Amino acid sequence: MALIVHKYGGTSMGSTERIRNVAKRVAKWVRAGHQMVVVPSAMSGETNRLLGLAKELAPAKTGTSYDRELDMLASTGEQASSALLAIALQSEGMESVSYAGWQVPIKTNSAFTKARIESIDDVRVRQDLAAGRVVIVTGFQGVDPDGNITTLGRGGSDTSAVAVAAAMKADECLIYTDVDGVYTTDPRVVPEARRLKTVSFEEMLEMASLGSKVLQIRSVEFAGKYKVPMRVLSSFTPWDIDIHEEAKSGTLITFEEDEKMEQAVVSGIAFNRDEAKISVVGVPDKPGIAYQILGAVAAANIEVDMIIQNISKEGKTDFSFTVHRNDFARTMDLLKDKVVPALGANEVTGDAKICKVSIVGIGMRSHVGIASKMFRSLSEEGINIQMISTSEIKTSVVIDEKYMELAVRALHKAFDLDQA
Amino acid sequence: MALIVHKYGGTSMGSTERIRNVAKRVAKWVRAGHQMVVVPSAMSGETNRLLGLAKELAPAKTGTSYDRELDMLASTGEQASSALLAIALQSEGMESVSYAGWQVPIKTNSAFTKARIESIDDVRVRQDLAAGRVVIVTGFQGVDPDGNITTLGRGGSDTSAVAVAAAMKADECLIYTDVDGVYTTDPRVVPEARRLKTVSFEEMLEMASLGSKVLQIRSVEFAGKYKVPMRVLSSFTPWDIDIHEEAKSGTLITFEEDEKMEQAVVSGIAFNRDEAKISVVGVPDKPGIAYQILGAVAAANIEVDMIIQNISKEGKTDFSFTVHRNDFARTMDLLKDKVVPALGANEVTGDAKICKVSIVGIGMRSHVGIASKMFRSLSEEGINIQMISTSEIKTSVVIDEKYMELAVRALHKAFDLDQA
Repeated sequence: MALIVHKYGGTSMGSTERIRNVAKRVAKWVRAGHQMVVVPSAMSGETNRLLGLAKELAPAKTGTSYDRELDMLASTGEQASSALLAIALQSEGMESVSYAGWQVPIKTNSAFTKARIESIDDVRVRQDLAAGRVVIVTGFQGVDPDGNITTLGRGGSDTSAVAVAAAMKADECLIYTDVDGVYTTDPRVVPEARRLKTVSFEEMLEMASLGSKVLQIRSVEFAGKYKVPMRVLSSFTPWDIDIHEEAKSGTLITFEEDEKMEQAVVSGIAFNRDEAKISVVGVPDKPGIAYQILGAVAAANIEVDMIIQNISKEGKTDFSFTVHRNDFARTMDLLKDKVVPALGANEVTGDAKICKVSIVGIGMRSHVGIASKMFRSLSEEGINIQMISTSEIKTSVVIDEKYMELAVRALHKAFDLDQA
Repeated sequence: MALIVHKYGGTSMGSTERIRNVAKRVAKWVRAGHQMVVVPSAMSGETNRLLGLAKELAPAKTGTSYDRELDMLASTGEQASSALLAIALQSEGMESVSYAGWQVPIKTNSAFTKARIESIDDVRVRQDLAAGRVVIVTGFQGVDPDGNITTLGRGGSDTSAVAVAAAMKADECLIYTDVDGVYTTDPRVVPEARRLKTVSFEEMLEMASLGSKVLQIRSVEFAGKYKVPMRVLSSFTPWDIDIHEEAKSGTLITFEEDEKMEQAVVSGIAFNRDEAKISVVGVPDKPGIAYQILGAVAAANIEVDMIIQNISKEGKTDFSFTVHRNDFARTMDLLKDKVVPALGANEVTGDAKICKVSIVGIGMRSHVGIASKMFRSLSEEGINIQMISTSEIKTSVVIDEKYMELAVRALHKAFDLDQA
């Protein structure tokens, strides 16, 4: 008997027929002797429908009070789908109970619309499991220290599932989704992309943070921090597929580096056109510059991705970074109105028409020349590199958005990812 | 400056356009200097949509675990509409915050799908009012001692509004609905029915309990218990109607009997075809019979309305009562399987094709012969009376369902209710 967490995305929960299939699949796992916690997303389209109503009522509204109400509103989607799944399980003869985030409770900070989980109390869930119930925990949501409902941001149900799995010390967290695993890159861009049977936690973390949409990055962070074995697999296999076959399908996110030793140096190509580039030009090169710029950005709750500071010329330097494209206008305004005058910088420039393309592979640690192979490959295609950022296991470049597909295809081929 | 509670029904909240109108109306009251608490229902159709999904998944399911999930599910409708109204108010330039039942908290017992309010904590709401916010409190729902979400049953938002008004010691509770007040009877049955400018709390209580659908009975009980001045008025007047005119429109539910002294003896005719009649025939006439029968019914959480025990013949008596038609089959089974064998009664008979027609009037206290005038009037129409029940201010009869409209029209005319 194992303790297993299943997470089902919005498409998997998209109709009563599909919810019934989820219930049958979960019931199969229960009958195989497992204790089950299930984290569903809202029925597909529901979150957009709700947020659309809010937008009709307040097209231009922003601010904390507004975001608080958005979370109040959007969280109902998961509460409803969780109750429906509990009902479907009861209809399959299972004892089942659903809990909203505040009932578990899943405690978060107060950053409405993108809150972070701070703790999960497992007492109530454990009691239900011990009593033989399937426990449904709403994804995407929690409760802040003042008792306000919070949501975790788009894709937050992945994070909920992994966080619950970590809190419960679950044996495995299975993320059921509309793709059947993690690929070397997006098959819609590169038809030759291959599914990876395993991917290391660190590679997955880079891929998620670099724009691969399979998993929300914070779910991978949680999985890494708490060593939660996590598997991405398809919810579109028949529910009555053999459980042993199902348990080995998809892509396992592994913590064992040894398994990867003999594999390719580069595991995948990630890309992302959700970013925008901002440069503060002609900043006096004094200690504390980075803090003065990025501190103001962080205080506005804007996340920064790549950060580059060039060497100083004549006591002045250029400071560049990328933010989510949705935060672009707000960040530009903030810098122009407050930061640039205070710093005595020359100006702020920005470009939203960029993309980031990255090669990821744990093998890069022990192999040299990987980055230069990447740069050569892009150069052969005539693609100009605007920014570069590296970590132990990835190299990212910012390029003009229009070259994205070309770059991804070229790199996928250059690193032989189309070959098993 | 007064503290006012507004309640808006599902039709009034039926679209973003209507929600915006509600927000404009509430904002008008705020600008007139009032502190405002607003209790909205779910958008019309939403509760049925949600419960329809549950029914698709579990057509025949019943029981506490199922009812718990139904409440989890149905309560999302009011949470969403409350957040939307808060957003609409913010868009009108008002500070506004919405609270789900558990956040206030509105504490109830654990009778899922028909819970009763036990207490309301007003601290949080009062702090927000003091800070100049419009507070939106979800209707229809609360939280039980174990932290489960409960709902108050159909029409429960009226009760929520009055209970909140009572807890806050509000100056008036305005129930905005799709009718413009309380009528002498349903105008769809009697076109000559007239709107009452005032109705006493006791009359309203009888009318609500006798099937008048304008207000949920428990809301009137609450209003009576805590002396909450309550007004039923239309939400379809233009939102920018003069506030003094609006404040005097509809029907006021009054606690001042004097105002009614000179008025008609009978104020209204109520009717109800939601009931079914059950008789336990040939019960040994011993102490404790009523308890044995009705105790078992109450233990199954079935509400009983009229109760009649005839005089004993040869040591045996007949015991009749009415229940909601939805509970008819369940009550019959319960009596046949458990109660009749234990009692040694002869049999149980039942009839679901009945209706109850009642005359209501506070003047009946001081006038004699009212009931006999009612019976004569029905007799003149050839209508047979199956059961009779009376209180100080009403007389109800159970008759064959097919005579309902005829009986209501005859009584409306007999008591001159068509004349002002």
